[in-house]
Amino acid sequence: MISLDKIKEISRVSATKIVLIVIDGLGGLPNPDTGKTELGTAATPNLDALAAKSICGLVDPVSPGITPGSVPGHLALFGYNPTSFSIGRGVAEALGIDFDLNPEDIAARGNFCTVNKDGLVTDRRAGRITIEQNLELCQLLDGLAIDGVKIIVRPVKEHRLAVIFRGEGLSAALGDSDPQQVGMAPKAITALSLKASRMASIASQFVVQAKEILAEHHPANMVLLRGFSRRPKLPTMGEIYKLESAAIVSYPMYRGLAKVVGMDVLKTGTTMEDEFQTLIQNYTRYDFFFLHIKGTDTAGEDGDFDTKVRIIEEFDKALSGMTALSPNVIVVTGDHSTPALLGGHSWHPLPVLLYSKWCRPDGVNEFSESACISGGLGRLSSTEIMPLAMANALKLDKFGA
Amino acid sequence: MISLDKIKEISRVSATKIVLIVIDGLGGLPNPDTGKTELGTAATPNLDALAAKSICGLVDPVSPGITPGSVPGHLALFGYNPTSFSIGRGVAEALGIDFDLNPEDIAARGNFCTVNKDGLVTDRRAGRITIEQNLELCQLLDGLAIDGVKIIVRPVKEHRLAVIFRGEGLSAALGDSDPQQVGMAPKAITALSLKASRMASIASQFVVQAKEILAEHHPANMVLLRGFSRRPKLPTMGEIYKLESAAIVSYPMYRGLAKVVGMDVLKTGTTMEDEFQTLIQNYTRYDFFFLHIKGTDTAGEDGDFDTKVRIIEEFDKALSGMTALSPNVIVVTGDHSTPALLGGHSWHPLPVLLYSKWCRPDGVNEFSESACISGGLGRLSSTEIMPLAMANALKLDKFGA
Repeated sequence: MISLDKIKEISRVSATKIVLIVIDGLGGLPNPDTGKTELGTAATPNLDALAAKSICGLVDPVSPGITPGSVPGHLALFGYNPTSFSIGRGVAEALGIDFDLNPEDIAARGNFCTVNKDGLVTDRRAGRITIEQNLELCQLLDGLAIDGVKIIVRPVKEHRLAVIFRGEGLSAALGDSDPQQVGMAPKAITALSLKASRMASIASQFVVQAKEILAEHHPANMVLLRGFSRRPKLPTMGEIYKLESAAIVSYPMYRGLAKVVGMDVLKTGTTMEDEFQTLIQNYTRYDFFFLHIKGTDTAGEDGDFDTKVRIIEEFDKALSGMTALSPNVIVVTGDHSTPALLGGHSWHPLPVLLYSKWCRPDGVNEFSESACISGGLGRLSSTEIMPLAMANALKLDKFGA
Repeated sequence: MISLDKIKEISRVSATKIVLIVIDGLGGLPNPDTGKTELGTAATPNLDALAAKSICGLVDPVSPGITPGSVPGHLALFGYNPTSFSIGRGVAEALGIDFDLNPEDIAARGNFCTVNKDGLVTDRRAGRITIEQNLELCQLLDGLAIDGVKIIVRPVKEHRLAVIFRGEGLSAALGDSDPQQVGMAPKAITALSLKASRMASIASQFVVQAKEILAEHHPANMVLLRGFSRRPKLPTMGEIYKLESAAIVSYPMYRGLAKVVGMDVLKTGTTMEDEFQTLIQNYTRYDFFFLHIKGTDTAGEDGDFDTKVRIIEEFDKALSGMTALSPNVIVVTGDHSTPALLGGHSWHPLPVLLYSKWCRPDGVNEFSESACISGGLGRLSSTEIMPLAMANALKLDKFGA
């Protein structure tokens, strides 16, 4: 892909509109009984009809064989090379709950968890406590001050929280305390650079105090921290593509991600219908929409093949409301694969379809992993999707003499 | 692609011959009435027969979604990454008319144009005046001296001219004066770096004097300048590939381009037949031929689907004379797409066929955008074509131990 600086030089404002739909964890693996993936199994007449008018292909978010986290998966879709740009998990969570991060703040993603009397983690999610319990516990931890640093604690969802360290001369170069598996003790928070030793000490003291405060609150009797990070300065979608961009997303982390790349994050509800309604209501106000569907990933993570199929079918039904708006460019793809058979993110490439009046359709008339293999886009990097969408929207000038 | 330095290490001289045929603006978009592109519509029995013996694919000159200018489109075909190497438009025009550029000369591409009494451009091409009128006007402008800098003015074709600034301490870091659209005044020529301020002043004074000199010569009563540039030092095709290379090209700009990469530019006529005759006559003297067909691009730019089809068919007929020479490697592709439906260059990838005894044919037996999707080359960068042609000519040693 050419550099974002070059794209910046050739991008131009025009009246056309682009809708990028990201079905989280879309890619799958074939059910051994049928030989068909989740997407291949789902009845998707609307997607198939759209594929027939589109150019299709398979995309790798990072590179072949690499399983992407949610952040690199999305950055790639927005055109940012995920091996050059990153957004810390802590920052994404904090921004996702509309917390107003200062440039110097250090944010961490937290989990309430359960430890036994020997201090070993027995449940990394504290039985997925309710948001009400979460809020109560956060209030107990919020507002501590250690060595002149204020510690702000906010609930996210279920067992998840955001912890923000606010003060002078802090560093984000810290290891996680989350051991990522049960049966182990939380890890000591270590400095990853010399400058970070004070910050490591402050974060460690916070964990010690939190353990004391939470001692009587089984199952949420401990907190795990990871993804210490500072808000990065990324070139925005507006700067690169000259787009007025809006994100329609219900999950906090993805809202945070969209904010870092400069999108307006629109208020929306929790269902797919809510999201499509938000798109319709705001359609005249922007020229780029990022619409995020989360349920497919959750079903994949839960190893629930049938639920993933059902959610894809539900999406297919909802799609017609959007296509009636006749956007100039429609892209449907995912941020990574989450095959129910693996029960987690995977490295498998994602099907993608790109519709426009100028797309040069390729004969693929079914939206599935196997049909997209013979698409006209071939196999390419997810980072190429934005330049292609921009080109198809006639928003890029010629490169070179 | 591996670096040109690495290619230089492994390239070797051999008795085999490569013919690279570039059909300018080859790629197209389907006619809504038939669903077929210009190339898909054209009857091309010779190309189809060649495709059946070849390996085929789709190439992106710069990267997916990027619409290439003619210079980056060609540089990529010669194996030069067009985001690292460039040749200014002024230099390409000047070299193309066999003007002997000094290393310190600054060349600009000029257009005679029409301005109204308010100074606004009403025709960027001055009604495409004849070359005879062009020559007369160039003689009026030629030989001015400003601040010790000599200004040389030469006709190119129709309304096009080359303006060369010859003197000490000049800079090419200037903005264009061509506003690229009618209804606007020519832009002031601005310095893009501090060092270029004297040069900006000289170029501006030239434009002022030219306007006075041309005042009574409506429709060619003004001149627009763009692509200020100095001859770049590119590694030559001889240095990289150890090839004796020849260009068979009738259009000036492409002749200039071929010179910069070190090709011998052969004298030829203006028709396709002339070009093929030149190839046949010089066949024993070189081991690499670049043959350029321009008419397809012009027809595409004019939005003339049928003429583009006709020129492709004419090319197909002429092809048999060349294949009778039995070159070891034949490549047929384009420098960029110019779909008649868009009436200009576009980002769509180009079909490519590569014939050699060692090419491993792939079952594609039709030379079209849609058939090439399933070719054995897949979708790749145009910069990969030269290494593939060299390999198929058995002109590359093994890489590594």
